[in-house]
Amino acid sequence: MTTECLYEGKAKRIYTTDQEGIFRVAYKDDATAFNGEKMEVLEGKGRLNNEISSLLFTMLHEKGVDNHFVERVSETEQLVRQVSIVPIEVVVRNIAAGSLVKRYGIERGTEMDPPLVEWYFKDDALGDPLMTDDHIRVMDLATREELAKMKVMALQVNAVLKPFFKEAKVDLIDFKLEFGKTAAGDILLADEISPDTCRLWDEESGESLDKDLFRFNQGNLQEGYEQLLQRLGGTNA
Amino acid sequence: MTTECLYEGKAKRIYTTDQEGIFRVAYKDDATAFNGEKMEVLEGKGRLNNEISSLLFTMLHEKGVDNHFVERVSETEQLVRQVSIVPIEVVVRNIAAGSLVKRYGIERGTEMDPPLVEWYFKDDALGDPLMTDDHIRVMDLATREELAKMKVMALQVNAVLKPFFKEAKVDLIDFKLEFGKTAAGDILLADEISPDTCRLWDEESGESLDKDLFRFNQGNLQEGYEQLLQRLGGTNA
Repeated sequence: MTTECLYEGKAKRIYTTDQEGIFRVAYKDDATAFNGEKMEVLEGKGRLNNEISSLLFTMLHEKGVDNHFVERVSETEQLVRQVSIVPIEVVVRNIAAGSLVKRYGIERGTEMDPPLVEWYFKDDALGDPLMTDDHIRVMDLATREELAKMKVMALQVNAVLKPFFKEAKVDLIDFKLEFGKTAAGDILLADEISPDTCRLWDEESGESLDKDLFRFNQGNLQEGYEQLLQRLGGTNA
Repeated sequence: MTTECLYEGKAKRIYTTDQEGIFRVAYKDDATAFNGEKMEVLEGKGRLNNEISSLLFTMLHEKGVDNHFVERVSETEQLVRQVSIVPIEVVVRNIAAGSLVKRYGIERGTEMDPPLVEWYFKDDALGDPLMTDDHIRVMDLATREELAKMKVMALQVNAVLKPFFKEAKVDLIDFKLEFGKTAAGDILLADEISPDTCRLWDEESGESLDKDLFRFNQGNLQEGYEQLLQRLGGTNA
């Protein structure tokens, strides 16, 4: 494989490959939180997120949710379809936690029924601000049809993942998705779905099995992610 | 008139009266900005805002926009219909400025066509955060019908005020509205419309004739407000 790095984000690098329209994603061990204010290298995190995300995207394929995932090719790497990322972070919330609680004073643990879908402008320098449909229109970040499609797909992902995690005795509190557009203009689920991008609580103890372990020093991140992978029936590398 | 003060805000006090369903609003000379971080007493501001708001609400009545205004009863006081304020600040934007520019990096001066309508949670302690329709649903702050009504009325207010200010050679950049509910459940435009709640630029010079004079120390606030009142054909007390 060629090794031209197209993009380096906080948690992943994207490389070109010798296959047309296919990129290689390499998951890093870097952990960041609070828009990069907190940062650490946590050995094994890249492998765990690569495995968990591969497992979830494979299942989402089987459930009919179009996504960019092609195959996992090493402990820390996967192949994905080339897309241009829509600069909107899509958050789905089943239970109030995190920024929703902080922003509006909604009580932590409040159930969202139906689930709440939010848009955030994917821009680290601006701190990923909340957006409405109208802001997206004004900034021309996506068409009305693309937004509608992303909302439907985000709720489909939730409808698949929530019971899947529940079988593993884990409550899916909220999660962040990103979408991409193919050259043909189709919208695909992209990026990753991992404990870095989900808020996951043990259904019994309420303990976090996600990046809050790192954000709030709640415990060993790798142990939490490894436990989650095992519960989801993943491989043990 | 009785003098039981029901509520004291940053710029006004609300009193009961001996008329059922009627309140008396007394405009204060206090100027605050940045959620109360900057504060000053500016003599005459209460009178100017009371006159300007009375003039605008009277005109809005004539144009068919239901509102709480009854009559101006002194230099700094007006009577209004009793409503319970919907805790949503409604912002209408014709031109990008202020928080819109800061939040999303949209270029200052960008025209919004159609005008942009935003909801903010009226909560000083939380810093009046931006909300979507779904947040309002989750927090049960207004019904879908009430929101739709408020949006239509906000755009009507804009359609009346924008040309009215333009005749006075003033560009209406953006403004904040509040709505209230009567005992019967009707939605009325409430609060005030004044240079405290609008962003107004002289069409020639681009100079502010609004609270930005105070916010950013751009000049004498009272002179700017007085000039605006004159241009709008208001009285000279």
